[in-house]
Amino acid sequence: MLVVDAMGGDFAPKEIVLGAQDFVVETGKKIVLVGREKEIKKELTKKGNEIRNIEILDAPEIVTMDEKPTMALRKKESSLWKGLHLVKTGEAKGFFSAGNTGAVMATAVFSLGKIPGIDRPAIITPLPTLTGQTFLIDAGANVDVKPENLYQFAVMAEVYLKTAYRYQKPRVAILSNGEEEGKGNDLIKKTYPLLKENLAGFIGNIEGKDIFKGVADIIVADGFVGNIVLKTGEGLAESIFTLLKNDVFTGLKGKLGGLLLAKSLKKVKKRLDYAEYGGAPLLGVNGIVFIAHGRSRRIAVANGLKVMVKAVETRFLDELLKGDLNVQEN
Amino acid sequence: MLVVDAMGGDFAPKEIVLGAQDFVVETGKKIVLVGREKEIKKELTKKGNEIRNIEILDAPEIVTMDEKPTMALRKKESSLWKGLHLVKTGEAKGFFSAGNTGAVMATAVFSLGKIPGIDRPAIITPLPTLTGQTFLIDAGANVDVKPENLYQFAVMAEVYLKTAYRYQKPRVAILSNGEEEGKGNDLIKKTYPLLKENLAGFIGNIEGKDIFKGVADIIVADGFVGNIVLKTGEGLAESIFTLLKNDVFTGLKGKLGGLLLAKSLKKVKKRLDYAEYGGAPLLGVNGIVFIAHGRSRRIAVANGLKVMVKAVETRFLDELLKGDLNVQEN
Repeated sequence: MLVVDAMGGDFAPKEIVLGAQDFVVETGKKIVLVGREKEIKKELTKKGNEIRNIEILDAPEIVTMDEKPTMALRKKESSLWKGLHLVKTGEAKGFFSAGNTGAVMATAVFSLGKIPGIDRPAIITPLPTLTGQTFLIDAGANVDVKPENLYQFAVMAEVYLKTAYRYQKPRVAILSNGEEEGKGNDLIKKTYPLLKENLAGFIGNIEGKDIFKGVADIIVADGFVGNIVLKTGEGLAESIFTLLKNDVFTGLKGKLGGLLLAKSLKKVKKRLDYAEYGGAPLLGVNGIVFIAHGRSRRIAVANGLKVMVKAVETRFLDELLKGDLNVQEN
Repeated sequence: MLVVDAMGGDFAPKEIVLGAQDFVVETGKKIVLVGREKEIKKELTKKGNEIRNIEILDAPEIVTMDEKPTMALRKKESSLWKGLHLVKTGEAKGFFSAGNTGAVMATAVFSLGKIPGIDRPAIITPLPTLTGQTFLIDAGANVDVKPENLYQFAVMAEVYLKTAYRYQKPRVAILSNGEEEGKGNDLIKKTYPLLKENLAGFIGNIEGKDIFKGVADIIVADGFVGNIVLKTGEGLAESIFTLLKNDVFTGLKGKLGGLLLAKSLKKVKKRLDYAEYGGAPLLGVNGIVFIAHGRSRRIAVANGLKVMVKAVETRFLDELLKGDLNVQEN
């Protein structure tokens, strides 16, 4: 059973409820929708047998998208606290939210606790590349970090990819402003030797232009840089498609070409769309928590839940809990 | 007269010399090519009257693209030292290089000195947006900075845009991981009040996804983040065009559409191409220095020199030198 935060996200509860409903109808899996019961019920479009696998857990308090984590922590009747509690007691196998990232993270840390050896949890998110996908950690959970935190992110990411995605030896890189050792800001310069000495799969620094080339499986950055990279990519892709569309639909030549090419554009856009990739796990808390994009709509929620249920089945959390993650790898 | 570093850049001296030659033939302006005389002469394809405006200044020492700035500073017979010296003495109005950014910056600071009130020079570079262009400062000169440095970058950028681009009141934003005041890492949180209190055009934080929307004229970031944003954008744009091209040329439908759309793709690509934008000024040194992309080829060099000559003519350096830049604006 998975718990879905029905109240989190820019388009909650409607798009969350519909996405969760799609997931249940399609997969036959059980979920709990946590949030304001009346509002949730209003959004469910299917009835009876089709959604007999959906339970609703009432949670009257709302955590808004820009609420400070410290404020959110006080709302014990929120969908966050009530939903995460089900994970804590073991009744649910994982918690999914498109809500306020800082609030989800803070509540998860307080409710579930951290994995031994990990000081800060981090979000790992897949990014499309020319050849497949790469994983960025941290996608926005921590804005100010120490080299040890980045090292822990890398170790968690390695365990996650080995377990949930069956990579034999994921290639781990640090995102920097140059490839050579010694390039980077103070944080990166101090992180480099930690990864070099302790991670078998470490391949060094990569630059922004290499993210989409598929040269690394794991890209390590602090959450401030990670967020900016993700959002810059999102914004640029959107702009390119807007420019192409505008240009294509200008002039007869463009119009004809546009019709013929619509399929191509759509295909490439789909590859780059976060909605296709769904949620990203918060690694480092003692429980499975997936955080989806705040702008997630129905399809992103349904896809995110599918990614999550697959990851849950690989028991990656058990692997993360197995050993002292600060110990040297190999 | 402008000085061009013939030895700097991944494709130097050939592409630099050819681009400079194009610039001279097209504009009739005078330049000095500084570098190894024999190698420069070998690359010049035009003769006589057509290039009577090109002088060559021999500089036997080479600063490589990955040489440490401290090492570069010792090479007093390099194209950097010898070229910048002409700016220092006033014989030349500006120096252009596609070489090692760190080395150019260090040599420029030592040779020309800094503008009073500025602790660190920064690179300001134009980026295409949906509606026109925006300017990113710092594009990679300083990886570890203080809030005061970012504030100085913003003030210099404002003067530059008002003078060289005739903006009345440029909109200045900080690049962060959220729009609200209080979002950002420690550096950004401390920078925000400095800009809010002292810059009339300050509009707050913007996120990565807003860079290309044209909501700000000046985007302030440290050089580490700035470099990653630029390179990520470059890499992503390249990947999108590769994916589109591959997809377009698959299947008959694609082939036809591809031919019709080739012009559209080319147009959009051109808009995003750094080569079209050319060099970016290093603001904060007491002299005009433009730094071009290391991968600049002939067309980027010629365009960069055109941008530079236009900027020089606006006498933006005089404006920067006019007042104490640390003093409150308005």
